[in-house]
Amino acid sequence: MHIDLLRSGDKSLPRQISETIAQRITSGLLQPGTRLPSVRGLSSSLKVSQVTVSKAYADLETRGHILCSQGKGCYVAERDRSRQGAEAGWQDGYDDYLPRAQLWRNFDYSEVDYPFHLASIHSSLLPLGPIGTTMAVLVNEQPELMATYGNFQGDPELREVMRRHLQSRGITLGAGDLMITSGAQQGIDLVARTFVGPGDTVYLEAPSYTGAIDVFAGRGAEMIFVPMDGDGMRVDLLTAMCDRRPPKLIYTNPTFQNPSGVTMSMPRRQRLLELARSYRCLIVEDDPFSDLYFHQPPPASIKSLDTAGHVVYMKSFSKVLAPGCRIACVAAEGNILSRLIAAKSASDLGSPLLTQRAVLPFIERQYDEYAAKLRWALRVRQEAAARLLKQYAPAGVTWQLPEGGLNLWLQLPESPGIEELHALAEREGISFLPGDVCYAGDMPSRHIRICYSQLTQEGMERGLRQFLLLLGRHLCS
Amino acid sequence: MHIDLLRSGDKSLPRQISETIAQRITSGLLQPGTRLPSVRGLSSSLKVSQVTVSKAYADLETRGHILCSQGKGCYVAERDRSRQGAEAGWQDGYDDYLPRAQLWRNFDYSEVDYPFHLASIHSSLLPLGPIGTTMAVLVNEQPELMATYGNFQGDPELREVMRRHLQSRGITLGAGDLMITSGAQQGIDLVARTFVGPGDTVYLEAPSYTGAIDVFAGRGAEMIFVPMDGDGMRVDLLTAMCDRRPPKLIYTNPTFQNPSGVTMSMPRRQRLLELARSYRCLIVEDDPFSDLYFHQPPPASIKSLDTAGHVVYMKSFSKVLAPGCRIACVAAEGNILSRLIAAKSASDLGSPLLTQRAVLPFIERQYDEYAAKLRWALRVRQEAAARLLKQYAPAGVTWQLPEGGLNLWLQLPESPGIEELHALAEREGISFLPGDVCYAGDMPSRHIRICYSQLTQEGMERGLRQFLLLLGRHLCS
Repeated sequence: MHIDLLRSGDKSLPRQISETIAQRITSGLLQPGTRLPSVRGLSSSLKVSQVTVSKAYADLETRGHILCSQGKGCYVAERDRSRQGAEAGWQDGYDDYLPRAQLWRNFDYSEVDYPFHLASIHSSLLPLGPIGTTMAVLVNEQPELMATYGNFQGDPELREVMRRHLQSRGITLGAGDLMITSGAQQGIDLVARTFVGPGDTVYLEAPSYTGAIDVFAGRGAEMIFVPMDGDGMRVDLLTAMCDRRPPKLIYTNPTFQNPSGVTMSMPRRQRLLELARSYRCLIVEDDPFSDLYFHQPPPASIKSLDTAGHVVYMKSFSKVLAPGCRIACVAAEGNILSRLIAAKSASDLGSPLLTQRAVLPFIERQYDEYAAKLRWALRVRQEAAARLLKQYAPAGVTWQLPEGGLNLWLQLPESPGIEELHALAEREGISFLPGDVCYAGDMPSRHIRICYSQLTQEGMERGLRQFLLLLGRHLCS
Repeated sequence: MHIDLLRSGDKSLPRQISETIAQRITSGLLQPGTRLPSVRGLSSSLKVSQVTVSKAYADLETRGHILCSQGKGCYVAERDRSRQGAEAGWQDGYDDYLPRAQLWRNFDYSEVDYPFHLASIHSSLLPLGPIGTTMAVLVNEQPELMATYGNFQGDPELREVMRRHLQSRGITLGAGDLMITSGAQQGIDLVARTFVGPGDTVYLEAPSYTGAIDVFAGRGAEMIFVPMDGDGMRVDLLTAMCDRRPPKLIYTNPTFQNPSGVTMSMPRRQRLLELARSYRCLIVEDDPFSDLYFHQPPPASIKSLDTAGHVVYMKSFSKVLAPGCRIACVAAEGNILSRLIAAKSASDLGSPLLTQRAVLPFIERQYDEYAAKLRWALRVRQEAAARLLKQYAPAGVTWQLPEGGLNLWLQLPESPGIEELHALAEREGISFLPGDVCYAGDMPSRHIRICYSQLTQEGMERGLRQFLLLLGRHLCS
């Protein structure tokens, strides 16, 4: 399909594509039932990125012009014929309560060799052996673990282990103050469904974690993004903003923040907590990375300072142990926690018992030693990535090396667009996270996020070098 | 704590208890921080059931008088002292979007020998051996399965196996039309969060599945319960009701319905689908039990009749294979499915890959043979339960034996209350599901649900005999 695109025009590329296709559909040029080109195919023929085409398709789908389904691709919606697709025209008018278009859904990453967009840890660094062994023993010796619905709040034995884990990190609570969720994503989702409704004000760092943005958007929240500097969220600005719009909830990822890598200073943590107290609101402290420091341990968690149950603290164990086990711990007190447990029970009747027990011995006995090794391995990778950046990054590209975590947040010079860069990179089998998905709405961003830990070290170095060379060519073109 | 209860009064027992305790708190008789008696303790001292006390405590918690947390019990809320509980007084005024009080949350079933309230299958009947073996092999040979986030929509190989499974049951769809969820509970939840919002009309059978009621209540839906007869939901009445209030969604469990055991006739299934077409709305067909028939296979699913994507079909594999694996399949078409996948991705980034692969070979190769054996075993149990009912059920207790499934739905004579019965039964280590939780609000019910499959056959027979004898004494008293 050929579409003339004006790269210097007022209209964004996705809008140009979606309007053109919509015209062809309404004019009858594209018949109902016609299959549209794949995202990959159209992005390649138009020389735009998959992000651009995905946005256009998401827009067309929202407006009812096309139907997309994973694996089958996108089709022009049919209005009045018989059989599926067909009579299913009614579906286009069926209202939903979904958040922003899920850009990534139509992506095809099967041919990406260097998936730098994924913030995860390569399996060779994860303790899959010991966890797998425990699981094999459990299914053999206690098969009934697979047959039981767990406790809604999470296995009491695992909660006790997590209680001790948190205590060693300055958070003193009872095992009754903890809840196990299927990953931190579910924890964020439970908080949102319990406490955030249409029009409620949620403050987040600018930029913030895409998964949290999606969840709050899905609840119809009014999201306000608070600028950051090298000490994290600008709590002084937030204070002024709260005067105008009192917060229902503040979401923060204060340590080695995703995506920026910035760590919030201790004074800011204290002030943020004071703010929550004076506004009688919740802070969600999402903390997947605090054990992954390279030099000094980061400041104590906000939760460790909390004396009045203002902080819902989320500790993901998925990310650092075994993402497939989907285990995270949520710490909160009083009726904030009891309401979250009620939401958990309605949402899935409790997380599976087997995976909870499979990670238990490792967290209890081997976690700290493992975390020390993992810190070392990640630091080595970051140093290697830093060397490559120094050597190959074109002029005008800037970055701050985070003191821990998995990600680099690169700022590109203004000129050539990130969408074109993404399209070019994909053709070389490389992907990255465009910064604009770390904001709500259509906020343009000059940043990209690169994760240096999801490949082997050698693969990471090869891919990053290739990407930086490509970036150089792109910026000079 | 002593409370004078008027058993013949206008006010319900829970209301009498909660008002008395609230008065004692506001008058200062009960000081902030005071621990209330446990649900079990108070129910025993007042000679009422745990349900009654739980309702009272849930009401007090909603009104901010007390704070409850699992494991720690319930405390009188503190308003203005230092440290947790304490300054956490702010929490009581922090708004939430939770549905009805989660009655069951404060229950203590640790001393129940005969948990007839649980609708599940005893582990000795489940294929935990083969599934456990597959899992042990997987963690050994493909440990990286624990390290990967799965596909949001579910593992493509498992979806292909499920596609063939559904095809053998008359539902012809592509693997791209299926999504894997963490149990059917999550499937219902995803539909509700995607398509049901405040004030939307949802029709359900009267009575219906408690887990679905909680989910729709949580979305602020207007739930309307449609009477049933021996052929299932009265679609004629529903048609008249829809004229007054058009449906956004109809939730049905048409085969061996939970809790009533009734199966919807084929003509009703067809008419229900026609109704959905004329109102351009969705039907959620929740179908955990259709393979568990004792004599004739039940009528074809509503989904198998659906040509225009009106039915979201949910098939739980958890219930019949391994509840701890939390695997269910959702079948839907067009942009109904693609919107559900978007909701799934925001809710948990996809179900764990390992458990999906662990059930795959069993579903592919052994399920049908296993289902035949399971039907036989359940039928034997139901026959044993039926014999005991005939022999020991007191006059005035009535029931219909369902043609399949796990549950009996007993109607008790009007006179003595079900709450008192529940309290008595608990003292003998027996529990059952009181019928009123199968409706929204405070609808009184003369029914109770008993599951005959979650114990060993011998245990079930012993417990049921004991319960029926107790019921006889209760009704004569």
